[in-house]
Formats: sequence, C-alpha cells, structure tokens
Amino acid sequence: MAELGVLSDAAVLIGGDGRIAAVGPLEDVRRSAGAANVVEVSGVLFPGFVDCHTHAIFGAPRLADHERRARGETYQAIAAAGGGILSSVRDVRERDGSALLEATRRRLRVMLAHGTTTVEVKSGYGLATEAELKQLEVARAVANGRPDVIATFLGAHEVPEEVRSNRDAYVDAVIQEMLPAVRRQNVARFCDVFCEPGVFTTAQARRVLESARALGFGLKLHADELEPSGGAELAAALGAVSADHLAAISESGIRALAASETVAVLLPGTMLFLGRPAQAPARKLIDDGAAVALATDFNPGSSPGLSLPLVAMLGVSQLRMRPAEAIAAITVNAAAAVGEAGTRGQIAPGFRADLTLVAARDWRELPYWYGVNLVRGVWIGGAACHSLEGPLDLTD
Amino acid sequence: MAELGVLSDAAVLIGGDGRIAAVGPLEDVRRSAGAANVVEVSGVLFPGFVDCHTHAIFGAPRLADHERRARGETYQAIAAAGGGILSSVRDVRERDGSALLEATRRRLRVMLAHGTTTVEVKSGYGLATEAELKQLEVARAVANGRPDVIATFLGAHEVPEEVRSNRDAYVDAVIQEMLPAVRRQNVARFCDVFCEPGVFTTAQARRVLESARALGFGLKLHADELEPSGGAELAAALGAVSADHLAAISESGIRALAASETVAVLLPGTMLFLGRPAQAPARKLIDDGAAVALATDFNPGSSPGLSLPLVAMLGVSQLRMRPAEAIAAITVNAAAAVGEAGTRGQIAPGFRADLTLVAARDWRELPYWYGVNLVRGVWIGGAACHSLEGPLDLTD
Repeated sequence: MAELGVLSDAAVLIGGDGRIAAVGPLEDVRRSAGAANVVEVSGVLFPGFVDCHTHAIFGAPRLADHERRARGETYQAIAAAGGGILSSVRDVRERDGSALLEATRRRLRVMLAHGTTTVEVKSGYGLATEAELKQLEVARAVANGRPDVIATFLGAHEVPEEVRSNRDAYVDAVIQEMLPAVRRQNVARFCDVFCEPGVFTTAQARRVLESARALGFGLKLHADELEPSGGAELAAALGAVSADHLAAISESGIRALAASETVAVLLPGTMLFLGRPAQAPARKLIDDGAAVALATDFNPGSSPGLSLPLVAMLGVSQLRMRPAEAIAAITVNAAAAVGEAGTRGQIAPGFRADLTLVAARDWRELPYWYGVNLVRGVWIGGAACHSLEGPLDLTD
Repeated sequence: MAELGVLSDAAVLIGGDGRIAAVGPLEDVRRSAGAANVVEVSGVLFPGFVDCHTHAIFGAPRLADHERRARGETYQAIAAAGGGILSSVRDVRERDGSALLEATRRRLRVMLAHGTTTVEVKSGYGLATEAELKQLEVARAVANGRPDVIATFLGAHEVPEEVRSNRDAYVDAVIQEMLPAVRRQNVARFCDVFCEPGVFTTAQARRVLESARALGFGLKLHADELEPSGGAELAAALGAVSADHLAAISESGIRALAASETVAVLLPGTMLFLGRPAQAPARKLIDDGAAVALATDFNPGSSPGLSLPLVAMLGVSQLRMRPAEAIAAITVNAAAAVGEAGTRGQIAPGFRADLTLVAARDWRELPYWYGVNLVRGVWIGGAACHSLEGPLDLTD
C-alpha cells in the first residue's frame, strides 16, 4: 500500500470504450496515440476516488442530534428525544420518492465535485420492504450517473419501532420478505448488516448474510464499531468483500482479516464527528497484512461529511497511515471493497478511465491541505463530467 | 455565547460608509431604507468570519513533516531531518518578497472563499530583523484587501539556528532591534510570543511583551499548548487580547482567563492534524466564564487548513461546544481576539458590513456538513467581493 507509482509529464490514452488504453511518459503515449483528441491539464491526476461506504440516501439533516451529543447526551437519550437512526427512518418512510431522489442527486453532485467517481450507497432507513425498495429505487435511478452508484441492501441496519420487542422476527422478515424482494427487483449488488451488541448479534448477521449469499448478493458487514464481537472474523469467514468500521476490532479479528481477501474499511470521519477517542487500528491492520480502505460513511447522524480528501488526511493524521497508503485507501483498495478491484481505482491499461484532477504540484498535497476542495476536474469512463475554475491551489 | 439572535425573512441595510445602518425584518428595513439598492439572497447570512490566529505568510508546504509524523517520528527528529519551523524560516529568508506576496495573496483568496473576512497573520518565519520585516511588509501589502489583514509581530516564535546556544541573547535582539524596527515601519498591531517550555519561558515572554506594550503594541500569547507553564496567567496579567492554544492550560490559568478580558483562542485543527489526543478544555473555559474563540492556526507545519466552518465543526464535535457557541467563536469572540470587539463580528448597527452567505436553510448546518464549502457570497465593508455559483447546498 505504501508504494505509489508517480509519473511526471505523463499522459493517459483513453480508448473509445471509456477504458484506459495506455499510460506513460507524454512522448511515448503521443507516439502510440494516433489521431487522439488531446486535453492538456496541469496538476496531479489521481484515479477517481471511490467512496466505498455511505448512507447517502436520506432526507433531512439531524441537526439537533449534533447539539445534543455536544451536550453529552447518550445515544439512548437522543433516540428517546426523537433523534437517532429511527428519525431518519420516519423521514424516509414519509418522504416522496421523487423528493428523496432530488436530494440524493444534489448530494451526489457535491461528492463528484470532491473527486468521487464511484460511490457505494446503502439502504437501511426504510426497515420495511416497501421503504427499503424506495431507497434502492433511488439508488438505481442515480446509478451509472455521475458519480456511478453501487447499491447495498442494509435492511438489517436497526430494528424498526413497530417490532422493537422481537428482533428475531425482524431478522426473519429481512430474510424471508425483504431479501427476495430486493433480489426480484435487482436493485442491490451487496447485502450488509449492522452487527453490534444491542443491534444485531453475529448469529443474526450470519443468518442474514448466508441467506443473501444464497441469493447471489455480495456481502459486507458493519463490524466491531463500538465493541469487539467477532464481526471482523465473521466477515472474513463468509468471504465478505469488506468489514467496515472496526474501531473496536479484536486481535483475532485483525488476524482473520489479514488472512483473508476481505477489505478493512475504516471510517475516521465518523469517529471525528462523534467525538470518540478511539480510531480503528489502521497501522496494525496494514502492518499485519490486511487491505485497508477509507470511506466517508456519509450519513445524517454520525458523519455528514462527503470529502474523501479530508478522510485521507484523517488517515494520515489520526490513523498514522502514510500518505501513499491513504491514497491507495480511497482508490485501489476502496474499489476492491465494492468488488471492482480489477476495473476501477487505478490508472492502468484496461481500467475504466475514471480520473480526478487535483490542483497541486505534489500528490502528497491531497491529504495535507485539509478542509478545502482542490479537485479541479473529474472524468468518468473517459467523459469529462465536472470541472471547477478558480485559483484555489495552495502550494507555493 | 450560547445565545444567537436568528432572524428569518430579514434584511441588512448598509450605509454609504460601509457600515450596517439597520438590521431587522425585511418589511421594517425596507420602509426605512429609502432608495436603497436591493440585493436578494437566499441562505443564511452570518457575520463575516474572523480568523484570529494564523501564520499565513509562508513559502512551501511541509509535506515531508506530515509523513514523518505519521511514522511516529518526534518533532526533534523531524527538525533534525531538516523539517520543523526552522525549515519554513530558511524558506522565507531565501524567498523573494514578491514571491511570498503572490503565494500569500492566493491563499488569502481561498480563505475569503471560505467566508473569512478578517484574518490575523503573524510573522515568525524570519527570526531576524530583515526577514521579519519582509513578512510584515507582505502583511501590509495585503491589508485592507479581501480579506482584511491584521498583522502580529512574532519574532519570538523560535530561536534561529545561528544563535541556538543563546536564547536570552535572541530575546534581547527581539526587544532591542526587532520591536523598535517593526514599530518604526508601523507594520504590526500586535506582538506575540511562543511561550512553552523549551522555546521561550514565561519570564522571557514577559520581557518581550512588556517591551512591546511600552511601544504601543497590543499583546497576544501562544500559551500552554503542550505543557502548563503559566502562559494563560501571564496573558491575563498583562491584559493581552488573547491567550492562544491552551490544550494544556491549568486550573489557575482557566481562573485567570475567566476573570479577565483576555480571549481564549482555541485551535482544534492543529491538534487534529498533529494527531494529538488532548484538545483544549473549551467546555470548562466557557462554563467558568472565559470568552472562547476558535481559529485555524493556518500554517505549513501543524495546521495547513484554512476553513473556519470546519474549525467550528471541530468545536462542536471535539470540544463539546454548542453550535451557537461555535458560531460566536468564529465571529464576535474572534473579533474581540484581534481588538475589534465593537466593529466586526456582529450583524448590528454600527458594525462594518462584513457578511458571509452560506447555502443552508438552518444556521446549524454550518458546523454540521463538514469538509465542504457552503459559502456562496462574501461582502466586506458592504462591497461584494466573492460569490460562488453552484448547487452545493446539502440540505433536504
């Protein structure tokens, strides 16, 4: 992860199929290019950023939760006051699908403007078949757009108010009703579960994920965010593409991920926004051989931030990742965490021509100038789809 | 600090002198306005943000320091490898004044684009009379511009390499040569000292600041960043406008600030970027009665970030400030920390018409959607000086 190929005075040749045909020194590529259109850019060209963990389909921001948390109220107290995940569930259930689509499109455009070319979005604010499908229909409506969207079914995000007393019955409903309905509509590629003591146990998560796998879904898992409960081990055992959060991962969880192909997706913005002291042990995960990706966790409760460059800065400053590791974590490794290891996240022949141009002289500026948007251009499948003018480079 | 006056469907009447003549409900202001030009805006209009602590006049970014810190190297090791403050000193000494001016102008424009209408900038990368004056001449050249600049002389930022062995002799030079030269050129309004064990003692800081006061400078102090050493107490005793950093402030320091007019300027972005676990005790400072401001500390070593909205988010999420306190901390209290309590930082009659328009429906969105720039317009002294188009609002 710490080795990054960096070229100067280089060119990328994009084929008619939207894939990268060649990459190398400008003169070499020019010689092989024939009658190509040439777009000259200055700055640093990265692989398009991949945000591999978001809950980007939601209605209103949860502004009151933020203030209550600052006052020291517990999540239980915030939920009792009408906040928490279930307030977003009420919102999504009541909101018209077209209004949800419009808000989502607008937010995805902001993600694009920050360099994200592929974004994973989860359902999980419906918690009933119809409302989960409403979210996933929004995801389908914005898919193959700008940025490109990969959808994950997260019916097991929380237990809805109406069946609070019977968590196992809700898990049954996820397995027997929701999963088959999502499969029939073909609106999600992955299935995810919020596995955490007090939410869904590892046994419940296993039931859901095994059922999902049997239906052909790829697997993801919210694991070990607050307490170690064997979530990472479960994700690795089931061959999930990713285990996400991991701030409280155990030693055996680290070993399990290191020995697997499952990507450890870390979400440092969430810990920052919640004001929690513990960040995931990125250094140990990497040093022990796990593949680590970083994502925003964009959602209205615990992480209303959507800038991957800021997350990369947090990777370096908070997680002690090297700058090169942080770049790999929002590109090649993030692509692997959404099942696109061989197709996105690298500037290399055969990969889709998803590119993000940054106003900088040195690639290390990306995770350095924090809190500003240095992205100046974005291409998806070779097509220019965002450019920002402005003298916003900060280097000397 | 927790009480914010919020008006809906309101208007601001700006006089020919660039000051606010009236503010109130739209219809009331319209009735009193006569033949005013009307500019209609939607969003939330804040007092222009005041960044009351920066080291914005520098040359190159210190990219290698960031990676070395992530690898666990100490500040001493980083300095020994050619990094640290003294590398910025070498850079500023060697760099042409016009190159320094150009880089500074560009960075200040980015600050403006993030809503900052007044910025305090310090010298301190010169550490010799001529080089300190070069930095302060840059500050003068950009003052009364956009954003407006208030300059602080920080000759006692560190001891330069050439006199490392004799710190007291350097303090003598600051007092006997630099302060009078800065006074003669009239290029700084405040004098500041980096008071910290291993850098300048409280006794040395007192000598510098008392000399500065005698020459008519206002006073500021870098205090108690890493260890409690009586810095806050000294700032209060000398009647400084601010005591800054304070991550390691003592109980007696808190009492001293609470009993004084000295503003506690907290810099949470620095602690974030450095990956330090301890943030300043904002909650206790506020609850005990101190005035708290927040600033970026924008500098190439420990805080290459210049977004005050992000700093306000850190105030809420990391320092447990209420959203209203965080807004006060980057406006009215920050104005007090640069000696402009009665003139800037409020939307009220008589105040300079410095205004920042944010794409939001609710003012609490500013410290919530973190890492994106929601600023859509900036006015200084009533003159429009920045506007950004784009569908970048994130609310539902």
